[in-house]
Amino acid sequence: MHDMNQIDKPRTLGDLPTPCLVLDEAQLYRNMDRLQVVADARGLAFRPHLKTAKSKHIARLCADRYGPRAMVSTLVEIEQLRGLGLTDFLYSVAIVPGKFQRVRDLLADDCRIAVAVDSEAVAKSLVAFCRESGAQISAVIEIDLDGHRSGVRPDDADTLCAIGRALNVGGLLLGVMAHAGQSYELSDQVALAACAQDEAKSTALAARTLVADGLPCELVSIGSTPTALSGAPYPGVSELRAGVFVFFDLVQAGIGVCSKEEIAMSVLASVISKNERSGALIIDAGWMALSRDRGTADQVEDLGYGQVCLEDGTILQDMIVADVQQEHGIIKPREGSQRKLPNLAPGTLVRVLPNHACATASQHDRYWVLDEQGHVRDEWPRFSGW
Amino acid sequence: MHDMNQIDKPRTLGDLPTPCLVLDEAQLYRNMDRLQVVADARGLAFRPHLKTAKSKHIARLCADRYGPRAMVSTLVEIEQLRGLGLTDFLYSVAIVPGKFQRVRDLLADDCRIAVAVDSEAVAKSLVAFCRESGAQISAVIEIDLDGHRSGVRPDDADTLCAIGRALNVGGLLLGVMAHAGQSYELSDQVALAACAQDEAKSTALAARTLVADGLPCELVSIGSTPTALSGAPYPGVSELRAGVFVFFDLVQAGIGVCSKEEIAMSVLASVISKNERSGALIIDAGWMALSRDRGTADQVEDLGYGQVCLEDGTILQDMIVADVQQEHGIIKPREGSQRKLPNLAPGTLVRVLPNHACATASQHDRYWVLDEQGHVRDEWPRFSGW
Repeated sequence: MHDMNQIDKPRTLGDLPTPCLVLDEAQLYRNMDRLQVVADARGLAFRPHLKTAKSKHIARLCADRYGPRAMVSTLVEIEQLRGLGLTDFLYSVAIVPGKFQRVRDLLADDCRIAVAVDSEAVAKSLVAFCRESGAQISAVIEIDLDGHRSGVRPDDADTLCAIGRALNVGGLLLGVMAHAGQSYELSDQVALAACAQDEAKSTALAARTLVADGLPCELVSIGSTPTALSGAPYPGVSELRAGVFVFFDLVQAGIGVCSKEEIAMSVLASVISKNERSGALIIDAGWMALSRDRGTADQVEDLGYGQVCLEDGTILQDMIVADVQQEHGIIKPREGSQRKLPNLAPGTLVRVLPNHACATASQHDRYWVLDEQGHVRDEWPRFSGW
Repeated sequence: MHDMNQIDKPRTLGDLPTPCLVLDEAQLYRNMDRLQVVADARGLAFRPHLKTAKSKHIARLCADRYGPRAMVSTLVEIEQLRGLGLTDFLYSVAIVPGKFQRVRDLLADDCRIAVAVDSEAVAKSLVAFCRESGAQISAVIEIDLDGHRSGVRPDDADTLCAIGRALNVGGLLLGVMAHAGQSYELSDQVALAACAQDEAKSTALAARTLVADGLPCELVSIGSTPTALSGAPYPGVSELRAGVFVFFDLVQAGIGVCSKEEIAMSVLASVISKNERSGALIIDAGWMALSRDRGTADQVEDLGYGQVCLEDGTILQDMIVADVQQEHGIIKPREGSQRKLPNLAPGTLVRVLPNHACATASQHDRYWVLDEQGHVRDEWPRFSGW
């Protein structure tokens, strides 16, 4: 990597090595404020999902704003992010016995961890592990709302209660957790509000099923960025979660919960060639820098591998990264567009808004942080791995 | 990350944190040997593309086997891999003036660098930069064989000669370079041999055009793993390149240049749930561990996000990662298959063969290296970035 530390004058985008990831700090704060208003208005605790940013800086900002709760998708996120004011972690990927010891090693007075469970066998293993080791790992039952992955269906009372009882033998049952993954397929605000209400209703039903069986259910946690921002009421729910809201992305814009201008993160790239024959500009950001996420493919506006902007962030309407190779992005007008490819010479900087912030950010090891004048004021490391 | 160094007994796959990347060392050597035989049989110099492995260990193996030449797709690859016996680097992504200084900073007696150029304006800038700085950066003209990205068409004599003359003013013109990217779309060995012959013929034509104009053209470089292994003769070519051959992957198997059993790299994952209702096994390897590459989507056998194997590498016919979320992979039988989902309990280890080795490997920071007994005998770091 380029060593930027020796430069004294205000750094501009032109000083950065391309491709790289840039972050509009003021927009990040606005996005974070917006979620706080939503959670406060509902009187719900908020648990940010730290898998999107994977950044100590942003974790600290979350602790300052939202308090001690955090959701993670990897154990390395807990290893990296504890000790920053976040003390109450929920690990979202269904646990297996091979990971118990590693969770135990992370426990501390200022680091409580709850894990997700969706089978009675794993619940019993966890109770046995905690009894033998003296560890206090609490657990939530994962609720499956859309049939897409792991979890127990909210109306499957037998399984819910079997897992709940197994966990409760060891005093480990904390509650239930659901994620409305299907909300990502919506773009209509009425359908989105309905989805959010169903998320709340189904999860609350599972919670009531446990309580009716004499089991505790302190935590009733739901959330996704689209449903959290939908404004739907959440009766019977105690906690809201969201992750991608810190940055937003083109998928969220397509769903309708943000505008493209509210996307805080973009990939800075250099134009490296103009292919007159195929009518394309070539940039040095391919799938390695943008990811292969095609989240807008089924939305009303398919934006390929990303929306192209000028260096200053001005959106070039209809100009998208139409195709990617490992280190090459191919910019063309959207199919059917009457707009012409801009005439940008090799060396010109552009910025690409990401389809999916989690995926694009994961291709980079740092955020170059921009102030409101567009100067590079800091770099925030990102971590990766499991 | 898990600290594995304290374990004295032979480590097994069960000792590794999932998901992670495992590498069959003996298969890696067999794959590397195969390419050497091919290049030797043709009497061609071979230049391995180091973007696939991004590993010092594998770079050293390449230097030992193939000599000093190396292809890279990022400057960070030169920063990381020089000094290991590789002294002759070719940077494959069309250069822009903003990167000249960084290339210059990497030059050394044991580190010569050639860059790719496809415009007269950039060629002139490079000559001016070298004259002013005293740097000796040589250049190849990038040839565009398929219209997919950057480069000059091989029959565009005017542009070729204009760039060649501009470079030759500074004594920088080294030759021409082409990449038969379109070979990835083939699966028929006759078509593949024809594609390889066209690659050689077109690139040799561009070289002859320069020579006929009185320009030097020492290097005539072509290659892609499929065409390099196609067995086609390469008249007029001086150098062969390939990258993914070190590992192979499902796309290469679909093209027909390797078998699935020859794929040296896989992602180790844990089964974390069984979704009876949707008929799926859920594993803890999603797109973060597998990548979102869908390279087999248009092949005869669409293998979703990867081919599932047992822990010992036995291929589970028709069992694929049918869908992915960030940290979840959804295993189902291929559509239309009569085979039943195997009954694997949570905690069971599986291995997933990658669609595209470059993409999957790029999601990880190390290779866990397996010996022929399937023991973990080493870990080789990977680097990333630009």
